[in-house]
Amino acid sequence: MISSHTIGSLLLDRLHQLGLKHIFGIPGDYVLTLFQLIEESPIQHIGTTREDCAGFAADAYARIHGIGGACITYCVGGLNIVNATACAYAERSPVVILSGSPGMAERVNNPFLHHMVQDFSTQRDVFEKVTVASIVIDDPLTAERKIDRALTALLKYKRPIYLEIPRDKVLSPVQVASPRFPDVTECESDPAALKEAVAEVRGILSGSERPVILAGAELFRFGLEKELTTLVEHMHAPVATTLLGKSVIREDHPLYIGVYGGLVGRQEILDFVDQADCLLTLGTLLTDIEDVKAHSTLLAAGRTIHATAETIAIKHHRYENVRFEDFIRALASSPLPAFPSRPLPALDSVQYEKPPAHTPVTLRNMFGYLDGLLNDQTIVIADVGESLFAAADLHVHQSAEFLSPAYYTSMGFSVPAALGAGLANPKLRPIVLVGDGAFQMTGTELSTCLRYGQSPIVIVLNNRGYTTEREIMEGPFNDIQEWQYEKVCDLIGSGTGHRAETFGEFQSALDQAFADTQHLHVLNVLLDPKDRSTAMTRVAQRLAKRLSTG
Amino acid sequence: MISSHTIGSLLLDRLHQLGLKHIFGIPGDYVLTLFQLIEESPIQHIGTTREDCAGFAADAYARIHGIGGACITYCVGGLNIVNATACAYAERSPVVILSGSPGMAERVNNPFLHHMVQDFSTQRDVFEKVTVASIVIDDPLTAERKIDRALTALLKYKRPIYLEIPRDKVLSPVQVASPRFPDVTECESDPAALKEAVAEVRGILSGSERPVILAGAELFRFGLEKELTTLVEHMHAPVATTLLGKSVIREDHPLYIGVYGGLVGRQEILDFVDQADCLLTLGTLLTDIEDVKAHSTLLAAGRTIHATAETIAIKHHRYENVRFEDFIRALASSPLPAFPSRPLPALDSVQYEKPPAHTPVTLRNMFGYLDGLLNDQTIVIADVGESLFAAADLHVHQSAEFLSPAYYTSMGFSVPAALGAGLANPKLRPIVLVGDGAFQMTGTELSTCLRYGQSPIVIVLNNRGYTTEREIMEGPFNDIQEWQYEKVCDLIGSGTGHRAETFGEFQSALDQAFADTQHLHVLNVLLDPKDRSTAMTRVAQRLAKRLSTG
Repeated sequence: MISSHTIGSLLLDRLHQLGLKHIFGIPGDYVLTLFQLIEESPIQHIGTTREDCAGFAADAYARIHGIGGACITYCVGGLNIVNATACAYAERSPVVILSGSPGMAERVNNPFLHHMVQDFSTQRDVFEKVTVASIVIDDPLTAERKIDRALTALLKYKRPIYLEIPRDKVLSPVQVASPRFPDVTECESDPAALKEAVAEVRGILSGSERPVILAGAELFRFGLEKELTTLVEHMHAPVATTLLGKSVIREDHPLYIGVYGGLVGRQEILDFVDQADCLLTLGTLLTDIEDVKAHSTLLAAGRTIHATAETIAIKHHRYENVRFEDFIRALASSPLPAFPSRPLPALDSVQYEKPPAHTPVTLRNMFGYLDGLLNDQTIVIADVGESLFAAADLHVHQSAEFLSPAYYTSMGFSVPAALGAGLANPKLRPIVLVGDGAFQMTGTELSTCLRYGQSPIVIVLNNRGYTTEREIMEGPFNDIQEWQYEKVCDLIGSGTGHRAETFGEFQSALDQAFADTQHLHVLNVLLDPKDRSTAMTRVAQRLAKRLSTG
Repeated sequence: MISSHTIGSLLLDRLHQLGLKHIFGIPGDYVLTLFQLIEESPIQHIGTTREDCAGFAADAYARIHGIGGACITYCVGGLNIVNATACAYAERSPVVILSGSPGMAERVNNPFLHHMVQDFSTQRDVFEKVTVASIVIDDPLTAERKIDRALTALLKYKRPIYLEIPRDKVLSPVQVASPRFPDVTECESDPAALKEAVAEVRGILSGSERPVILAGAELFRFGLEKELTTLVEHMHAPVATTLLGKSVIREDHPLYIGVYGGLVGRQEILDFVDQADCLLTLGTLLTDIEDVKAHSTLLAAGRTIHATAETIAIKHHRYENVRFEDFIRALASSPLPAFPSRPLPALDSVQYEKPPAHTPVTLRNMFGYLDGLLNDQTIVIADVGESLFAAADLHVHQSAEFLSPAYYTSMGFSVPAALGAGLANPKLRPIVLVGDGAFQMTGTELSTCLRYGQSPIVIVLNNRGYTTEREIMEGPFNDIQEWQYEKVCDLIGSGTGHRAETFGEFQSALDQAFADTQHLHVLNVLLDPKDRSTAMTRVAQRLAKRLSTG
């Protein structure tokens, strides 16, 4: 026996070894012992107001920090975090969900314990559908192996895992075989297969003239931002990102052309990518949001390289024993052909001239003004809808300074994500872009930002309803009750609220907010409900076309 | 072909036939066509701010009205309502969850559509764990049969069902065999078995001297309140209710002795019930919250009758073909023995004398004062924790005027439940008792009460933290950020907020709130964090004892 551990302390020790410094969540009687252990551990508990917010915060934390965690109680807690866990699953974010549950001993005498649904395994059964590993740790003899296996899945797939400890097992002593989390690099790629794959890429590129790289969010998840930049520069190839991958390469890079995405991208970018004669899609799912038309055309021509954490596919075949991260690293360090410069699409689509102060605030002038204020100490966090679509055209500076649930598109992500992002990287100040509907879902989580001394800037795009839905089908079901969003500061007890109807009011409020780094600021921006960003107009036209053609 | 229907219109028609007049929820692109059909139907859509709130509102609506419904979009909506659905499952509330999903046609061309998690069936797989029927309606030929089978399960088990329609199937025409929902009474009880069961009860009662009836929430769900009263009066037997069943018999009934429940009940009630020589537990689960000690003792003595929607058990055997509602009706109309009067435990435990106005407000004086104001136009809705425990000792008047998630105990139930209750029975004004932690979860749903012209009174028990948890294990994880709860009215745009530190302030605020029936009122009641109701003290002592002996 190497060290003296309990099931609970071993688990927390492993999480801390993997870099987890904060864990989000809410206590409950079935998980109190675990909370007490967290209190004694180097991991800091961050108390949120709701469990789903803990989930979104952990997700954002994981995207930036490499691992995130939430700790909640049985069923009434856990079943409230299913959607946030599903978001992390869909967009590949390595979040650990820790849950307590009724003790094994108390289950024997009473089949109906409070918080229970169908039977004691209901919660685990649910999480099995939204995680890559879902385990109950109730046996000291297998605890270490089970924990390490689940954590390995977390790191390999960058997707959430679910760990449940019955409350009478948290303090069960375990004999620990390995005091450190075993290194998982043992299962690395087959060198011969990797070599063959890279050689094949080289071959395809040698026959190409106009390759384009489309970079996705998995490059973030595996920490491959630098390798991407190296690859782009070696090849001297134009690079676009997906919306979910926005800012995986710095946006002032001369080879960066913009956000691709069949739904939201600017037409110039779509045309440019669609005219490529070879396409490298790296770390991106080919979703309906991206809708990469060039991929199917080039696939037929044998000119596609599609690499994700799930699969490395070249043309129509797949390499089984090549890991995503090894493949990207190998590409970045291999002698690949370099391509001559060619005209790239113009970077800027935000046609913006600063208007007179009394002009009504519009999406165009607010985003135009905001774009000029972003710097390398800000991180833009966009919620779903106009917040996301309009933000697609913003210019962020450094790498990893844009965050949004751009594929799963779950409303209410942004405010709790600001909490998580602020703890993962306190050097960056979150600028939250959130619609009124989304703010009504989770906006009061600002309370927790306040509690832990954070000072995000929250810009509420108040257009009185669910605008994206309005674009698809108008009806009274898209209306919402209008709030005085700036007054959330009065409710939670601090922060500065602003109300902006004119451009001048918006400018003044945003300037104040940027100048005052010590307090959180909430801007209630009263937009014309008919106002649309150019990005939303593109999305709407394409959605209409898609629906009409089947 | 009898009528011209689509899958969507048939479903809404059936729901309307079963009495559904309102449906709670939030639109999303995969469910817009269904929302449009709702708009054209006699069912009114109630737009909530969050999906879980739609679920709680539908649950409360169903508890009062007999059926409730929520309509939400795929995954980002549905996976946010899992916990509320689980609450309805655990506490038997007949809620219909309607969801849209990606069209069958669009799935073919693209395996990654936005909002998707693992595969297209993830959401249905999750709901299978928290409903009694979970179906995807994608085939016009089987639509009617599938819908009717699911609705039959809803009515039979009084538990939630899940119905999903892919968006390109909502308007698929169906040939309808039966224009009316088929009556389910065909599968009623076996008359001979029913007769035998009732005769056996009569036999047991004939040999008893001190029977007690313990009445639970299922009597609400099956609309058997009157039958219970008849049975109680025929037998002239004392009756207690579980916490979940509180108010299933009017609390000024001379044979009503109070709320039983091993955790929360007053000792006099526990002793009285435990000294019974025959126990009829009707419509209640024997959970750890109830902890009916008498049951196991009397079971050994062959003096228990335990009837629920799942099973009719007398002594150690079960009647397979006897339905719960038939059994209760048969008992109420059978010639059962009548018992002589005997001394009952004193009804009142709220030792309350109106204190001077400058006295700090306490749980005892606030509940004492509130108790005197309750009337037959109020319904008390208690959230979890002190709100629930202290409310156990309140005296409600008419039947069905108390609502709380007393078994599943999910925090944040009460404010959305007030919305649902207000629509299910607009004659009753909801009095919401909610802790500060629970209010932070869903309190802003008051916005929707305001939107639809409701005027609940919300009393926030502000004691700066999770008090129930503090009783079990103290730690900083039980602290929360303090809000200025009364200012939620400023945020949502209307209503009157009050702040009460003294009894006089509380009294004045509550008087104003009761007098002003046209507006919603929020009372921020500043309690000493160490203040405990007598009920909470009982709970804490018993929990401590349970943990130390188990």
